[in-house]
Amino acid sequence: MAVKDIFNFARESEAILIINGGENSLDKTFQYIARAPGGVFEGSFIVARPDGSTIYTSILEEETAKRTGMEVKIFKTRQEYESMMRESLKKYNTVGLNYASLSLENYKNLLRIIPDKDFVDVSVSIKEARIIKDKEEIENLKEAAKIASDSIDAVHLSLKERMAEKEVASKVVYEMMKNGADGPSFSTIVAFGENASQPHYSPGMRKLKKGDGVLIDYGALYNDYCSDVTRTVCFGRASEELKEVYEIVYRAHSESMKLIREGANGKDVDIKARNVIDSTKYKGRFIHSLGHGIGLDVHDHSALSYTLDFPLKENMAITNEPGIYLPGKLGVRIEDDVIVKKDGCEVISHGATKELKEL
Amino acid sequence: MAVKDIFNFARESEAILIINGGENSLDKTFQYIARAPGGVFEGSFIVARPDGSTIYTSILEEETAKRTGMEVKIFKTRQEYESMMRESLKKYNTVGLNYASLSLENYKNLLRIIPDKDFVDVSVSIKEARIIKDKEEIENLKEAAKIASDSIDAVHLSLKERMAEKEVASKVVYEMMKNGADGPSFSTIVAFGENASQPHYSPGMRKLKKGDGVLIDYGALYNDYCSDVTRTVCFGRASEELKEVYEIVYRAHSESMKLIREGANGKDVDIKARNVIDSTKYKGRFIHSLGHGIGLDVHDHSALSYTLDFPLKENMAITNEPGIYLPGKLGVRIEDDVIVKKDGCEVISHGATKELKEL
Repeated sequence: MAVKDIFNFARESEAILIINGGENSLDKTFQYIARAPGGVFEGSFIVARPDGSTIYTSILEEETAKRTGMEVKIFKTRQEYESMMRESLKKYNTVGLNYASLSLENYKNLLRIIPDKDFVDVSVSIKEARIIKDKEEIENLKEAAKIASDSIDAVHLSLKERMAEKEVASKVVYEMMKNGADGPSFSTIVAFGENASQPHYSPGMRKLKKGDGVLIDYGALYNDYCSDVTRTVCFGRASEELKEVYEIVYRAHSESMKLIREGANGKDVDIKARNVIDSTKYKGRFIHSLGHGIGLDVHDHSALSYTLDFPLKENMAITNEPGIYLPGKLGVRIEDDVIVKKDGCEVISHGATKELKEL
Repeated sequence: MAVKDIFNFARESEAILIINGGENSLDKTFQYIARAPGGVFEGSFIVARPDGSTIYTSILEEETAKRTGMEVKIFKTRQEYESMMRESLKKYNTVGLNYASLSLENYKNLLRIIPDKDFVDVSVSIKEARIIKDKEEIENLKEAAKIASDSIDAVHLSLKERMAEKEVASKVVYEMMKNGADGPSFSTIVAFGENASQPHYSPGMRKLKKGDGVLIDYGALYNDYCSDVTRTVCFGRASEELKEVYEIVYRAHSESMKLIREGANGKDVDIKARNVIDSTKYKGRFIHSLGHGIGLDVHDHSALSYTLDFPLKENMAITNEPGIYLPGKLGVRIEDDVIVKKDGCEVISHGATKELKEL
């Protein structure tokens, strides 16, 4: 149970207050605890106690909140919001806050609403709890990855000369939603040819032509959990250069994947992939880290980076996504989502082939 | 120019530091200043000065950042991030921060990285600047509204018996992206029949049947700007009750719209719509406020609410969205996006008819 997992780490707190701001400062920990079926919960809060928790929200979310099985209280005005917050915490002296998500503005409000409390930063405890996925989370992550990886074939088959990147992006989202996604988990990247050399490219009106590499980095949102998958294919015959780059990226991906297991250091996994690339003439062309955590956030936490000591643990969910980027020419990235196991890892985005397709 | 607009209000600051956190704590003010064509800019920052501004970002966003025409500096490591921040602010004693967006964690980091500065909360100045849209912003908002309102007819025409809400949501997103949207501006709401009584409903597997009301609340993202439109139609013949409710909501929408102009109070506009509904047997069934600001955020700021004194000004962009909700039975909402003018308002989501369609 999520709340219990947090209190296992945050033993110093009697109660934890999770505050959602507006759409840009929603604390995903709200949903980690509530597991509500939908809803937005802007401006809502949760008071979490080791023995149970309460959702405080507006009438707009009442029906959704009640379906969580948690206690739900409804405020109608700002005054009620504040008095309910005071009342809910009056028994506690020490209140945990998620400093990683709480805005400075909301913190200043708290100092006014409940000035008599000792606030404790429980962001590290929350991170520790959220980084290990429970059974329900893994089911959601698997479904999000299945939807994404099962959707890409139809997109690839629909590619036609002179299609725009944006049009392909619309197909990606459509196929995923048709297959059960609640939406895209992030803004879909579709990059043709030379545009694929920008890892964070946004699709535009560039038209597809024979011989272009087609990089699609995309993901599905399912019950608030994210997948994040990348495939690169060729429209028409691949050049020798594209084939060579692809083979190296694929090898970096496969060889580093073999190292992922409980007890491995994320740094070593990244270095393995990096060494595969840096031992070729494409040395230095892998310009980002190898992978990150996935969960309620697409970038849930850092994971595989040569700059970070990060011991892998069972039931972490991470991406493995090496790439080679040649500005003005091409880019290749291959990305899968995996669950870390005791003696290896389970690829959950297995529906999409990783052989270089020529379409 | 955005930066100048902010400094017009924030005269107390010599420089303003806009810090992006992760995907849940991106400060849209970053994009308000940068107007970058795409990009994510997680973990990036801007140092804004009255005489020009600089983007500090990673190599992942370098090409996109450079296309803004602003000065761009690239950090490779956390150490470089911190030393560039120190260097960029060394001339200034007073540094403005956006307390509304900055996380407490990032604030504590600042106290360590640049402990010698006087920090000033410039969130109110930023809100004041962002609430009035400039020419480029209005063009983006108009295009986002046009895409959304031009897309709904095709969705309505595709409705078929036994379609699931989620399937209709996928069509909404597909049509908008086909028409040029970068994606949906928020998670599309499609609610059939009794589900429409929940204003923040998330679409599920409920199947469409004859006589159902179909409420679709959706929007397009275009160059980072949002639209937010709602239409309610009937699949098959509408019941007398649905027709009656629709007529009242439509009247609340039209009559309140007539009040929107520079100098009007948002509170009075809400009360006008609320009085239309509350003078019928559906008194009390309009359970949210009448409208909100739109911009880089879907809920850009508060605007039309009976609890809030809010003087409307020229070039504000707001929604007008009255609704009636009858739990277990039906819900009707009609929502348009408008630009406030000196002597009225311009509806920018005009492409979608507001007569009750029976499909």
